[in-house]
Amino acid sequence: MDDTVITETSPADVESCCRAAAGACAELADLAAWPLARRAGLLRAVAAMLDANASDLASLADTETALGSGRLVGEVARTTWQLRLLADVVDDGAFLEVIIDHPSAAEGPQAHPDLRRMLLPIGPVAVYAASNFPFAFSVAGGDTAAALAAGCPVVVKAHPGHPRTSQRTAELVLAACRDAGAPEGTFSLVHGFEAGRLVVTDQRIRAAAFTGSPRGGQALFDLASSRPDPIPFYGELGSINPVYVTPAAAAARGSEIAAGFVTSVTLGNGQFCTKPGLLFLPSGHGLDDALAEAVRRVPSAPMLTPDISDGFRSGIEEIAGTDGVRLLAAADGPDGRPPRLYVTAAADVARHPRLSRECFGPSSVVAEYRDEEELIEAAAAVPGSLAAAVHAEPGDEKLSRRLLATVRTRAGRVIWNGWPTGVAVTWAMHHGGPWPATTASIHTSVGPTAIRRFQVPVTFQGIPAPLLPDAVADDNVLGLPRRVDGQFQPARGTANPAPTNA
Amino acid sequence: MDDTVITETSPADVESCCRAAAGACAELADLAAWPLARRAGLLRAVAAMLDANASDLASLADTETALGSGRLVGEVARTTWQLRLLADVVDDGAFLEVIIDHPSAAEGPQAHPDLRRMLLPIGPVAVYAASNFPFAFSVAGGDTAAALAAGCPVVVKAHPGHPRTSQRTAELVLAACRDAGAPEGTFSLVHGFEAGRLVVTDQRIRAAAFTGSPRGGQALFDLASSRPDPIPFYGELGSINPVYVTPAAAAARGSEIAAGFVTSVTLGNGQFCTKPGLLFLPSGHGLDDALAEAVRRVPSAPMLTPDISDGFRSGIEEIAGTDGVRLLAAADGPDGRPPRLYVTAAADVARHPRLSRECFGPSSVVAEYRDEEELIEAAAAVPGSLAAAVHAEPGDEKLSRRLLATVRTRAGRVIWNGWPTGVAVTWAMHHGGPWPATTASIHTSVGPTAIRRFQVPVTFQGIPAPLLPDAVADDNVLGLPRRVDGQFQPARGTANPAPTNA
Repeated sequence: MDDTVITETSPADVESCCRAAAGACAELADLAAWPLARRAGLLRAVAAMLDANASDLASLADTETALGSGRLVGEVARTTWQLRLLADVVDDGAFLEVIIDHPSAAEGPQAHPDLRRMLLPIGPVAVYAASNFPFAFSVAGGDTAAALAAGCPVVVKAHPGHPRTSQRTAELVLAACRDAGAPEGTFSLVHGFEAGRLVVTDQRIRAAAFTGSPRGGQALFDLASSRPDPIPFYGELGSINPVYVTPAAAAARGSEIAAGFVTSVTLGNGQFCTKPGLLFLPSGHGLDDALAEAVRRVPSAPMLTPDISDGFRSGIEEIAGTDGVRLLAAADGPDGRPPRLYVTAAADVARHPRLSRECFGPSSVVAEYRDEEELIEAAAAVPGSLAAAVHAEPGDEKLSRRLLATVRTRAGRVIWNGWPTGVAVTWAMHHGGPWPATTASIHTSVGPTAIRRFQVPVTFQGIPAPLLPDAVADDNVLGLPRRVDGQFQPARGTANPAPTNA
Repeated sequence: MDDTVITETSPADVESCCRAAAGACAELADLAAWPLARRAGLLRAVAAMLDANASDLASLADTETALGSGRLVGEVARTTWQLRLLADVVDDGAFLEVIIDHPSAAEGPQAHPDLRRMLLPIGPVAVYAASNFPFAFSVAGGDTAAALAAGCPVVVKAHPGHPRTSQRTAELVLAACRDAGAPEGTFSLVHGFEAGRLVVTDQRIRAAAFTGSPRGGQALFDLASSRPDPIPFYGELGSINPVYVTPAAAAARGSEIAAGFVTSVTLGNGQFCTKPGLLFLPSGHGLDDALAEAVRRVPSAPMLTPDISDGFRSGIEEIAGTDGVRLLAAADGPDGRPPRLYVTAAADVARHPRLSRECFGPSSVVAEYRDEEELIEAAAAVPGSLAAAVHAEPGDEKLSRRLLATVRTRAGRVIWNGWPTGVAVTWAMHHGGPWPATTASIHTSVGPTAIRRFQVPVTFQGIPAPLLPDAVADDNVLGLPRRVDGQFQPARGTANPAPTNA
């Protein structure tokens, strides 16, 4: 039993974390100047440290989150897989986006000097941990991994839902940093609401990443944007993740869809940012019983924190009190915060914004549409989401095309005959979407391309070879993939040679 | 003589421009769904239309800006070169950043479904034209070219400094759009302060790009960030563009540096965003006479607009009135707004923020440092810039390394033994920098990578082949460079085959 008492970080300690973080990349003399291979090694060392302590971490997290140690052991594995994938991305080197244009003496606008562009680390990054993934979106989660991969020091604001897990994870990350010889200030953890506010407004912090509630995210976004020197704020806020079922799919696979939907809604007790909050079904779908039966089979589970529980209760009260909404199914759990399924007319969704706003927890709304036009119209009115799913049959090609064309402008990930929950960490993953899903629709918080949030381009003009970073030098000792004089040159060799300086 | 009277665009007309722009990408049925080759063709058609009218455009712009028709003809050429380069970038296809991960049945976190990521157009883009480049950063300038290359409709807010040039350019762009069969709403132009405010707050506008004054840019940034659905705002505001001269360089090439500096400061009458506003010289440099002589040789020229002229006058008054600042050189022109060179101690620059804030027009400040430590300290305190230059000698390697390491975290472009003015349009160009140079330090407003500002990633999960965009289909009929299952695959063939759907 870990009985560590976690206290809020004092303003003076927050200040010293930020100062140390700035020191860790002063004059690019430290972390940012490490050879790529060493940076990748740090990510792998953190992964190894977490893996070696996976079972203890999962037990500790279970006492704070009640998510179950099976799920939590799996989440540690997902977290360390992500750290290792990002280490591979650092080794690959394409993420530096090197472009070289040798000088041209051409006439007119085509004339240019020697120009060499690459991406450099943006500087110290603030990471706000989420409640619902105490590892994968927390202290050593995707944002931290991406920032370290970019070469940025990180100041993490712990989520109050799992303070001791956060503290223990931070100790392990710090141990890995020390073993790897990372500069003081490469990583630090702060606790408390006020500490979080101080970090995002600290002048040394150059970017912030957040996963959490729309209210908290909006407040931090406003602080970041109204600084004397605004910084990019990558917030993942609330997402409704609609699922569209064509008449043919409802007819062909109705009960399978009903069961799959309820599983997706109640996975992790509905506390995933990808939980589907809207299911569009054709009127007369005849699936009420199948949905209700699936809901009744869901085992009850406690919510992550009292705040989330309160928020869920008021959310379902608002939905239940909306004109035209009726309760379709409920399964009363022992804690009085049970799964809930509501039903309404598709045309009402756009009229009542509450119905397309995230309600964090095990609830969802079935929206019944009369015809294809109403379905497309409803889809066009649903706010931005992290993910959206289309269930259709091969004969639905025309309707599917229209749905996909609409949906892909309103969701960061479009799923076919599947469910929004489940975000794989791969090269091609995008976990983002238009507001209010995120505050920065052109970026992702999961996967290799998440690193781009913490990199700034710099172009070196006419710099003599001995003073150029290796990444942009002519001899390409790092073997990087680069665009040279307009032509793409793939990485040299199958593996990068030992780099000396990135 | 063009005596067109330009009036402010009414709110109703602004509304209809935004509605039409949204219509031009509804359900991705139009502009965004064009084959890449057709999109590239539109960019080339706009370029051809401008080239065919270059001399008339330059004459008209000269009546509004007095920049001289030689410079203006050259600027049209630069503008059309940029449009054609971006057409090549569209043909190249790498800008779609396609990543494909075939499904994996691996155990644990490595398991994943079929995932295919690409970048799609963000939607209608607002472009705020600049005063000082009536072509290259105006109606058909870099931001418009980048947005069209991304597949986004554009609503341009004209700069009041050259309304008739803007109107005429817009007519030519519209003619090219019509000839190319572009949907209604692909391009429109609005005039007036209130129209500009309405556009950035219109819910259909998905991103905004701006080049102009810090005050105007800050106001629009605040509007964009405080919308109910904030949108990315890419503002290029004010930049000080410092130049650092080592003692050895000052000794070896002092008069050459003095002359080059004054030329750079007064090019375009100092009305370039890359004008160097600070020159760091070692104390006792002995270049006062060379600098004063160079200033006296500068021919006087009128400012672009009365507002800019007023701003310059109050700017130099503030600088002249700063403690420790003295006038080094002045060359009185006929209009009473002459070039001005001031001098101060390097240590005072950080103490008086006015000295490191842009003063738009032909003035600059020489900052004298006592030793290398003071130079590095001063460099670390200069705010973010679009560009910075280092003048050094081969023997300066240690000092050069320190300077470059500091400067590259505070400027988007680092120049060796050259001057910040002159921004070539090439693959490797980066025209951006930390606040206050821009509101979005991770992006550029010039060159191929500027397109990325107007693209959002989407991942398709498990979508059947017939419904996938060609760009992410297995057979790669577009011949795009793509990353497949973690490995980079270069473009197939030397040219892309005729695409059927992007």
